[in-house]
Amino acid sequence: MSESPRSVQLTTGPLPGSRKIYVTGSRPDLRVAMREVELEPSSGEAPVRLYDTSGPYSDTGHVVDIAKGLATLRQRWILERGDVEAYDGRPHRPEDDGLAEGETMSVPVFDRQGRRPLRAKPGRVPTQLAYARAGIITPEMEYVAIRENLRRAGQAAPPRDGEDFGASIPDVVTAEFVRDEIARGRAILAANINHPEAEPMIIGRNFLTKINANIGNSAVASSVEEEVEKLVWAIRWGADTVMDLSTGKHIHATREWILRNSPVPIGTVPIYQALEKVDGRAEDLTWEIFRDTLIEQCEQGVDYFTIHAGVRLAHIPLTANRVTGIVSRGGSILAKWCLAHHQENFLYTNFEGICEILKQYDVAFSLGDGLRPGSLADANDAAQFAELDTLGELTKIAWKHDCQVIIEGPGHVPMHKIKANMDKQLAVCGEAPFYTLGPLVTDIAPGYDHISSAVGAAMIGWYGTAMLCYVTPKEHLGLPDREDVRQGVVVYKLAAHAADLAKGHPAARLRDDALSRARFGFRWKDQFHLSLDPEKAREFHDRTLPAEGAKLAHFCSMCGPKFCAYKISQEVRDIASAKAGMEAMSEKFREEGGEIYHAVTPAAG
Amino acid sequence: MSESPRSVQLTTGPLPGSRKIYVTGSRPDLRVAMREVELEPSSGEAPVRLYDTSGPYSDTGHVVDIAKGLATLRQRWILERGDVEAYDGRPHRPEDDGLAEGETMSVPVFDRQGRRPLRAKPGRVPTQLAYARAGIITPEMEYVAIRENLRRAGQAAPPRDGEDFGASIPDVVTAEFVRDEIARGRAILAANINHPEAEPMIIGRNFLTKINANIGNSAVASSVEEEVEKLVWAIRWGADTVMDLSTGKHIHATREWILRNSPVPIGTVPIYQALEKVDGRAEDLTWEIFRDTLIEQCEQGVDYFTIHAGVRLAHIPLTANRVTGIVSRGGSILAKWCLAHHQENFLYTNFEGICEILKQYDVAFSLGDGLRPGSLADANDAAQFAELDTLGELTKIAWKHDCQVIIEGPGHVPMHKIKANMDKQLAVCGEAPFYTLGPLVTDIAPGYDHISSAVGAAMIGWYGTAMLCYVTPKEHLGLPDREDVRQGVVVYKLAAHAADLAKGHPAARLRDDALSRARFGFRWKDQFHLSLDPEKAREFHDRTLPAEGAKLAHFCSMCGPKFCAYKISQEVRDIASAKAGMEAMSEKFREEGGEIYHAVTPAAG
Repeated sequence: MSESPRSVQLTTGPLPGSRKIYVTGSRPDLRVAMREVELEPSSGEAPVRLYDTSGPYSDTGHVVDIAKGLATLRQRWILERGDVEAYDGRPHRPEDDGLAEGETMSVPVFDRQGRRPLRAKPGRVPTQLAYARAGIITPEMEYVAIRENLRRAGQAAPPRDGEDFGASIPDVVTAEFVRDEIARGRAILAANINHPEAEPMIIGRNFLTKINANIGNSAVASSVEEEVEKLVWAIRWGADTVMDLSTGKHIHATREWILRNSPVPIGTVPIYQALEKVDGRAEDLTWEIFRDTLIEQCEQGVDYFTIHAGVRLAHIPLTANRVTGIVSRGGSILAKWCLAHHQENFLYTNFEGICEILKQYDVAFSLGDGLRPGSLADANDAAQFAELDTLGELTKIAWKHDCQVIIEGPGHVPMHKIKANMDKQLAVCGEAPFYTLGPLVTDIAPGYDHISSAVGAAMIGWYGTAMLCYVTPKEHLGLPDREDVRQGVVVYKLAAHAADLAKGHPAARLRDDALSRARFGFRWKDQFHLSLDPEKAREFHDRTLPAEGAKLAHFCSMCGPKFCAYKISQEVRDIASAKAGMEAMSEKFREEGGEIYHAVTPAAG
Repeated sequence: MSESPRSVQLTTGPLPGSRKIYVTGSRPDLRVAMREVELEPSSGEAPVRLYDTSGPYSDTGHVVDIAKGLATLRQRWILERGDVEAYDGRPHRPEDDGLAEGETMSVPVFDRQGRRPLRAKPGRVPTQLAYARAGIITPEMEYVAIRENLRRAGQAAPPRDGEDFGASIPDVVTAEFVRDEIARGRAILAANINHPEAEPMIIGRNFLTKINANIGNSAVASSVEEEVEKLVWAIRWGADTVMDLSTGKHIHATREWILRNSPVPIGTVPIYQALEKVDGRAEDLTWEIFRDTLIEQCEQGVDYFTIHAGVRLAHIPLTANRVTGIVSRGGSILAKWCLAHHQENFLYTNFEGICEILKQYDVAFSLGDGLRPGSLADANDAAQFAELDTLGELTKIAWKHDCQVIIEGPGHVPMHKIKANMDKQLAVCGEAPFYTLGPLVTDIAPGYDHISSAVGAAMIGWYGTAMLCYVTPKEHLGLPDREDVRQGVVVYKLAAHAADLAKGHPAARLRDDALSRARFGFRWKDQFHLSLDPEKAREFHDRTLPAEGAKLAHFCSMCGPKFCAYKISQEVRDIASAKAGMEAMSEKFREEGGEIYHAVTPAAG
């Protein structure tokens, strides 16, 4: 049980060309992690500061010891508020790990070294929403403000260039703005008091668009490093949160390893574990078993739970004529329970009871869309929207309890029906953040569903979705491997960034412009380093031009030296500036109505 | 010079689960190639008919002989119109292949077996536009009508579900509709009279969205089969047209092999070859050299030419403050010429002369956007839109000559600026079809630019772009390899199809629905076969569940047997139908206002 973990190497160190930096806030223990890309001196440009979720793993100074776990960054902040207390948690039971009484664990158990779980003191509500409503700016909120700003603070705001569909993205993010957005329910800061290792992160449409990656335990538990490495790998490429969708054996033990080593919020779907406890028989699920599972996971430090409380008995018949029925695992489990008992969903009937638990640990709700469409044919149908209406009701109940809420969304939706999803969600859920799975814009792309869904994700992100749940190339076909996870995360970073650009987020285009300048200036290494995936960019370039000197060449293998448009374009500039001064020409052209070209007196340069 | 081609195997035979079929039109020599996917008998469903550009290569009955070339499908149609004549074409010269006088060819020359080029008889205009305007429905138009219909004809039109932004997509495509669209200039049927091997294909926003793949000769000519295989490979995955962007040596000879073996329209950028003829010195280009190159390629059978006649001298200064200057190769060549001579672009000043040539062969114009933006920073700027205005002027001139025209578009454009491109193009180019390169919606995705651009391509296709030029994962980095071409084509088929779905194309969703039913019914093979890339879908599935029996399994490795939502969902249906009859429940629910669930009397089934 306490054997030391086998050694599988975690992926550590910075991405090529990046270095970890820390920006200190109003107190010395508030150090916000970012990464900076240093550009070639010839550029004369300042380093580019990038949002960074990779945690200490990408810091060259950090020594990894997963048996100890990460530093408890937020512990002091949590305790100094004086509203929580440690207690003897619920004992870890064999059934938590899917084991029969007396069956032996085959994965090691994380040694908590006596650390006991925290929960609210009687009558207190230690949620970021409660603080925000009380006008309190927490260190977590300040952390988020610094993190989201990138280089915005201290620089003149660039002219707005975007269509934000009614969002309220500020020029500069202040801690007060963060507080206000949380207080309105328009953003959440998912941070369980039992997950002090996590770096504060905010989800809301007036902030950078976030992405989630899903991981799950292997069928055959090989080593805990391997499980932690899945997390480390996903955040290395940019996942803002990670959902642990493990099933089967050892899920409690594995989750503990993940939480203690995760610098990002962790989400789960507690019904999966509850179902394990009743040997997979949905009809045997009870509120008591579910409740106990929630407490188990709250104590461990899970930051948000998918709760399928919107799958009401009355909605299930609406799926009868669907092409693809119910495609959410949680949704189908609860539908089966409802029909087997011919009773209302026990998550719906016990919703206030769930709130009472979650508010004690500041676990956020992710209200699950158990009836999301699994095909274009089922998109935006009565079942889907009936459930969304229910999620809107539940949002208000959760808010009443000072619980933070995000709303899950589809799924499979053709492009012309995407915006209706966003508009309805905003209308019925009081602007609680939307968290969508894609949506996929066609059903015919198995093997390419990360792309089918990235199209929909970019669009719904633009319209206002706050977090995008990634889809990998293996969607609908099988279990993603390491390369699939990387592809999924990078493609979703792409979609989220495209959304930020289109919304006119004031800091988003800084990176694109820096990369474009590098591209036009043939600074190949800067181009790689500013890329979403610097390793892939370099690898692709080097496949045809591997020599180190080619990284200084004023062409690439795509067109070769003679045909390079950039090279010719720069020659054009040289000729033009020698001849006439292009800026003067340009000015003159505009003055004269742009009709006919007139030579002008040569200007300087 | 006449050595027989070395044997590199072409990729032949149908995609898994497909078979080639031919639908005969009003005359026995009008046989429209399609493919059909046969579904598992258990489905009880008719075969699904798919649009197919792969030509005879995917027909098991076809014997490939690239030295003979493909059958001249259209030859009789072309000749029976009586408006063209064979003549002794321009002689094939060493400089056409980039060779010095006396230098030996290192690729074999295709044996035309005495076939001479065709051109218009004096005073006649053998273009599809001229015929259309004269009210003539050509066999090519009828071919296209049958091809575009898929299963629409003879079936009740499904209710329209889409937003088409003012397009006029008919329930059923008739030959008269095709004629009318061509006559209005809203569609082109690019079919050089010297490329009778090509299957007729139409480009216009009221038809299926098309995609183009680019190919180019290898730096070291290895074999002509290898060059032909690039074409065969691109059309196998669904390219509707292929542009041959070869540069350097042997481009005339290589092009001949490609044309004689291509069932799809071939496009080129003639300025590339003209530049070779002046040893890469843009300033040495002349109208005479360019004109001669046009005739050379017209006689060979190229179906459309990119002509950068919109890069006017007056526009060049507008690029002075751009982040990425001029990124089109053709654009930069012409900009350099203009500045070096301080004269108006000779393609602009000789535009009517170009029309006089193209109309004799029915080569379509693809008016090039030499000033397209190469970065988000330059999107929708004065240079880009000034050129687009010029392309609008030129469209009208080409139409005056009965020449067919499409307009090339960007490039790099953030999502919120995409629609303005489409709207302006429609307004200033009289609804001539738009043909865009992506656009890429962010600059920071080298290595993933096929995806960055697919987002933009899907959106602009939805807004009305008729053809999407593919981008491969190697864009900006190097030369695409075989797998990159496949990825690029499949991803663009995905984008084009997503656009058709969102426009509400009446036949588009048939395939999605068939695949979704297969998915929900665990018909794994049907799911693979209906996919854009059946081989990849199966390969991904089999990576975790390789056994043949798994193709019958009611789960996949993603969730395993216990957690499969589809399986549970079907159990839900079983319970529900046993209990109450879900349809009746659903009906009842709606009748009663959808508020509360009421049990109903069990119904049949």
